Amino acid sequence: MTIRILGIDPGLQTTGFGVIDADGPRLSYVASGTIRTNAVASGQLPQRLKIIFDGVREVVARYQPKCAAVEIVFVNVNPQSTLLLGQARGAALTSLVSCDLEVAEYTALQMKKAVVGHGRASKGQVQLMVQRLLALPGLPGTDAADALGIAIMHAHAGASFAAMAKSTTLTRRTHAQFGGGRTY
Amino acid sequence: MTIRILGIDPGLQTTGFGVIDADGPRLSYVASGTIRTNAVASGQLPQRLKIIFDGVREVVARYQPKCAAVEIVFVNVNPQSTLLLGQARGAALTSLVSCDLEVAEYTALQMKKAVVGHGRASKGQVQLMVQRLLALPGLPGTDAADALGIAIMHAHAGASFAAMAKSTTLTRRTHAQFGGGRTY
Repeated sequence: MTIRILGIDPGLQTTGFGVIDADGPRLSYVASGTIRTNAVASGQLPQRLKIIFDGVREVVARYQPKCAAVEIVFVNVNPQSTLLLGQARGAALTSLVSCDLEVAEYTALQMKKAVVGHGRASKGQVQLMVQRLLALPGLPGTDAADALGIAIMHAHAGASFAAMAKSTTLTRRTHAQFGGGRTY
Repeated sequence: MTIRILGIDPGLQTTGFGVIDADGPRLSYVASGTIRTNAVASGQLPQRLKIIFDGVREVVARYQPKCAAVEIVFVNVNPQSTLLLGQARGAALTSLVSCDLEVAEYTALQMKKAVVGHGRASKGQVQLMVQRLLALPGLPGTDAADALGIAIMHAHAGASFAAMAKSTTLTRRTHAQFGGGRTY
């Protein structure tokens, strides 16, 4: 059974998205791109959040993913930047749940381990591995590559949960659409 | 002309809202309350953001405000809390702009100066002054009082802009629905 996964790498200026189809271990590329807010003046935070919210909804409407995964962003050296990034991520998450999509969350570390094999991978290594895993004709942009990486991470987690579920019914844990995520 | 203003005091656990009608300097209370997310486990961030998003939309649908004002939240000592608060605020802002509402932003300092007269006012002083200014029969809760205070702040800003606009047409500045806000 093929499951379509939407991966999101949130950011206030650029939000990356990547859509893949996962059929067990087989992954195939559907689409990817970025939602940019720089057409709006930086002072207009609510309007920038609206662009992210509308943009994510548009991607969901166009590609009809069955589930979504969003990168867990990190606290920045600058607290004000952390707050802005948090608000951008809030807009992206809100957009997904307003479409009634189940949302999983992964750190960049988890994604890099899943995609490249170790957590210290560079942006370039992520781009290269995403290109290989999805048999892309060219290198994806960094934001799109991260978003596709998050979708791949979610596909792997889903495959693991499916394997766990098959192995025994006794120890099976309930996972609404793969689960994943973390505690706050 | 009466303008209905929705004030929002965003938070991940509790988001306060307050609705007032402003007819020049005359203010009257319409409604206030809180949107609570504690019915959802703290690990379920996307679901908590959905409660905030849906809750704010419900308030807008019920009271039909003409504009909104949201408190500018502050960076916390704990960066992780800052990030969570940012995401909650992002959900509230996104909800307002998804209703096509014009959104102004004010700091707690601006609100306290407008409501109490000085920026170092305590929560209790804000509650008391909000009760007096809106002739409420009882003390509003702290979150609702802050949200009503933000709405009052916006009403004052609107009255000032209106006075400025009347004083001379030459120096009049264009303010889409009061303006307000800050630069990032």
